[in-house]
Amino acid sequence: MGTATKVMAEIPVLFSDVLKASKRISPYVHRTPVFTSSTADELTGRKLFFKAELLQKTGSFKARGSLNATILAKERNPSLNGTVTHSSGNHGQGVAWSARCVGVPSYVVVPSMAPASKKNAIRSYGAHLVECGTKPSDRIETYERVQKEKGLEFIPPYDHPDVIAGQGTIGLEFMEQVPELDAILVPTSGGGMGSGIAIAAKHIKPDVKVFIVSPKGKMLEECFKTGKRLWPEPPQYLDTLADAIRLQQLGHITFPILTQLAEKEVFEMSDEEMVQGMRFVMQRMKLVVEAASGASVAAAMSEKMKAMDPAMKNIGVILCGGNVDIDHLPW
Amino acid sequence: MGTATKVMAEIPVLFSDVLKASKRISPYVHRTPVFTSSTADELTGRKLFFKAELLQKTGSFKARGSLNATILAKERNPSLNGTVTHSSGNHGQGVAWSARCVGVPSYVVVPSMAPASKKNAIRSYGAHLVECGTKPSDRIETYERVQKEKGLEFIPPYDHPDVIAGQGTIGLEFMEQVPELDAILVPTSGGGMGSGIAIAAKHIKPDVKVFIVSPKGKMLEECFKTGKRLWPEPPQYLDTLADAIRLQQLGHITFPILTQLAEKEVFEMSDEEMVQGMRFVMQRMKLVVEAASGASVAAAMSEKMKAMDPAMKNIGVILCGGNVDIDHLPW
Repeated sequence: MGTATKVMAEIPVLFSDVLKASKRISPYVHRTPVFTSSTADELTGRKLFFKAELLQKTGSFKARGSLNATILAKERNPSLNGTVTHSSGNHGQGVAWSARCVGVPSYVVVPSMAPASKKNAIRSYGAHLVECGTKPSDRIETYERVQKEKGLEFIPPYDHPDVIAGQGTIGLEFMEQVPELDAILVPTSGGGMGSGIAIAAKHIKPDVKVFIVSPKGKMLEECFKTGKRLWPEPPQYLDTLADAIRLQQLGHITFPILTQLAEKEVFEMSDEEMVQGMRFVMQRMKLVVEAASGASVAAAMSEKMKAMDPAMKNIGVILCGGNVDIDHLPW
Repeated sequence: MGTATKVMAEIPVLFSDVLKASKRISPYVHRTPVFTSSTADELTGRKLFFKAELLQKTGSFKARGSLNATILAKERNPSLNGTVTHSSGNHGQGVAWSARCVGVPSYVVVPSMAPASKKNAIRSYGAHLVECGTKPSDRIETYERVQKEKGLEFIPPYDHPDVIAGQGTIGLEFMEQVPELDAILVPTSGGGMGSGIAIAAKHIKPDVKVFIVSPKGKMLEECFKTGKRLWPEPPQYLDTLADAIRLQQLGHITFPILTQLAEKEVFEMSDEEMVQGMRFVMQRMKLVVEAASGASVAAAMSEKMKAMDPAMKNIGVILCGGNVDIDHLPW
């Protein structure tokens, strides 16, 4: 534990924050089940454990972090007017659902051209939808305006200690459910979930390896190896069908955390590989997963993984969400 | 318990057979989870509990009954040469998987025009595939020939006490998991699962209602009410996309059991309603289900159910399987 303690001291989210988050959100969120598949084990020669966050409230892990942040915002300001965020995807649903749990209004800024299904999902949790233009800058301008007008608390998607602590509860649960885990594969966009999982899992078991999984073009191996933010500015979206993980850059809080705690090898998966991963889980394991979940499945089944130490036997695979339109599956 | 004991006395499968089956098969099968959905509860005004047999080994509940029958066949005849059945669907996979668990060869007779995916699934569990012609009589002739040639034990799909006792373990588990159940909706073809569930659940809680769910044209309400087998001969298949429940007739063992234990009202669902049920479970609950599972979901959400006693609050919905081709979803 000596090493872990030393590392933890430099990190702005403590294991105790994750424990507190767990206590705080557990009346509302699911303790998601872990599945295994003998076929997956035969294919990989390892033992895979699939953490099913697709069965989480709102259909993705995002419910955890946004709820932790929303409850804390309300604790700090009992007369909170409400929350606001910008997201057409899982985070928007997470913030909308969390506000309903806490009993405050929420406002979600969504590009007007986002699919109706995503807008409806956010509305179904009782959020006010605020449409904006298509440029990244439109989102920011719109949410800042709404925030100021109504005096709302901004719930960030990943780069905030409260959000990270909430996502960390996945790592806490997973290590309790499968203490023998040797490694965990985490689909990663801004890095909130990866940071939270790494903080929790490595505190419990310092030897466990946390691997980042991303679409092609993430540049994260180079950034990790140099310790530098080599990404082009302004922030770019990657060209991938995995819309939940298309941010290229990690956050300013999450990048230093993951530089310390994650493995230097990053699994960059192609769209085709993610689709194969999705298909495996849907056809063989009967779980509906989105492309980002397919990415971690594909990583577990990849040549890169095959070449790694066979002593790394028990692999955790985060199935981060299931919000895919079943009318438009990508095959 | 007086009433239940009286009813049980007339039935060829006892609750103790279900308990023994549970002990026998539990090292191999999953104790499948039960899911809830706040959206489903809002839509129906009741509390629904979904028993996820799609997560069972082989992707359907069939693994339970065929394994119980296979283990018992081996116990009765330790020099058993192997097992045989005819089925292109879930029962074929169940028998193939069960034989592998027990360590005996199996032979599954399949119409040559069955989809390659179904044939591959059966082969993947190590069964010998025996192709036959397309007429129902071709199946019977072929399996009888193979059975005789190789001295195999026939594992019937539903009309056998060992199979019924195995399927009954679903009812046992479900009542343990959700003791407050007031009713259970069971997708039904030959009636093995319905019989087993009714025997177990009504022994544990005599007041629980077991409702049969089927495609249109089952004629079962008339048969129940008259106590007579009114079905045309030879046995017919119903015209439905739910291939797992297309048999019109119940079996000669299962019909008298269900006449005594099931409710007289039968839920006959259209293909369109089943598809709506499938879509709900896939899109909102993130579970891959086949049309037969969609049938029980549709029954829970039907006008017929809406008109029933609101005191019947807690409804169990059997999601019997998830073996649907995700490349050819029926919408």
